[in-house]
Amino acid sequence: MLIDVVPTAKHIGDYDLTAKTAVVFDILRATSTITTALANGCLGVFPVLSVEEARSLAADPKQKIPSANPDVMMLAGERGGQKIPFFPHGNSPLEYTAEVVAGNYLVLTTSNGTRAINGSVRASYVYIGSLLNIRATAVAATGKNKDIVLVCAGTADKFSLEDTLAAGFVIKELLHLKPALSDLATAALHLAHHYSREPVKAFLDSRHGQKLIRLGLQEDINWCARLNVYDFTSRFKNGRIEIDK
Amino acid sequence: MLIDVVPTAKHIGDYDLTAKTAVVFDILRATSTITTALANGCLGVFPVLSVEEARSLAADPKQKIPSANPDVMMLAGERGGQKIPFFPHGNSPLEYTAEVVAGNYLVLTTSNGTRAINGSVRASYVYIGSLLNIRATAVAATGKNKDIVLVCAGTADKFSLEDTLAAGFVIKELLHLKPALSDLATAALHLAHHYSREPVKAFLDSRHGQKLIRLGLQEDINWCARLNVYDFTSRFKNGRIEIDK
Repeated sequence: MLIDVVPTAKHIGDYDLTAKTAVVFDILRATSTITTALANGCLGVFPVLSVEEARSLAADPKQKIPSANPDVMMLAGERGGQKIPFFPHGNSPLEYTAEVVAGNYLVLTTSNGTRAINGSVRASYVYIGSLLNIRATAVAATGKNKDIVLVCAGTADKFSLEDTLAAGFVIKELLHLKPALSDLATAALHLAHHYSREPVKAFLDSRHGQKLIRLGLQEDINWCARLNVYDFTSRFKNGRIEIDK
Repeated sequence: MLIDVVPTAKHIGDYDLTAKTAVVFDILRATSTITTALANGCLGVFPVLSVEEARSLAADPKQKIPSANPDVMMLAGERGGQKIPFFPHGNSPLEYTAEVVAGNYLVLTTSNGTRAINGSVRASYVYIGSLLNIRATAVAATGKNKDIVLVCAGTADKFSLEDTLAAGFVIKELLHLKPALSDLATAALHLAHHYSREPVKAFLDSRHGQKLIRLGLQEDINWCARLNVYDFTSRFKNGRIEIDK
């Protein structure tokens, strides 16, 4: 088994995802938020690229869910770490409590994460990764018996420490399978070893983590830094993310 | 002072090098070979992009050195780790003993390294980095009092462990200056800490290092993995690399 790491959403096209299993990470915060919403009873998440597409789907959810009552589609997103003007919901995992999200769907557009998810569709299977369920995700991803591509969303089209760290945690879980590692996979594994006791330190070392702290979002960071809180996995399939059953 | 790391020659255009000091690494092997040749008395290295350009300059060195005797321009290069057909010299540092190279110039074209060097010309200063003179290079680079961009050549347009490690060794030397680090710079620093005692292990962990071993070039790897063998630095200026005086 070969494990490779894509450094950013922008560079997905440079990698061959065909017949592989992908795991997508935008740890701060899109994929952590998606995982949290699903854990709290959200029925599915539609990750879309543009603000316009998000608005259109929220206004007319029957495009995707024929039976839906319009009230069940919640409009959410961010650009540059901040809520989109006139969007009722942002990209904080803390917003998506069971009271808010259970029984509803989310349409979400974010700066990097939703691009990375949609860019990974050429893979045979696309898992949504987060530290919150990293072990379950690693185990499920290998269960497909394909090469694995760990897709980091990155920050502003550059390498991000927190996403690469998450990739490293997947690799760390799979070392017993003796996978062949690309150079970036090897570097990611070293990050996972270095930050294994306190992943939150990587977030504090990262430029995007530092930005979120300046925006007053330290609690989001603490939330996203917890390892293996959940046992479920989720997959992106036919345009929506749902818990993998 | 800000330190950033460019992951590959292909991505230099995504980074602002203006008014910065660049250090370029193609550790296996172009920049290690250039450093070795200069240490052994080579008068200057012309890094060029194409085989045709290399041939043309070797045939008519007066294009660059008006006073030159044609015999002093040595033609060298590789593609995919192997010598270019009909080129008298390759990209092994071990070829460039004082007997071979002293008093001569080299025109060199390689898969990634010469692209990275030529791609860095927008920087105010362009140093040629290698583990062989990493401390001297780090000290000289900071002496220019500018932000620093560490340009990794990469392998096949992807992240390379050995070049990023070299970037990390520069950062490790400059920590007392408390630089601000990009995320990739932070990751590079972790690699330098991890491999500080045995840099050669990183080469054995890297895909390109493994390829060179398959090609029978283990001795090249051992040569390039030695830290701080030389005290001089070299710079790329006006199309040629010379020892910095």
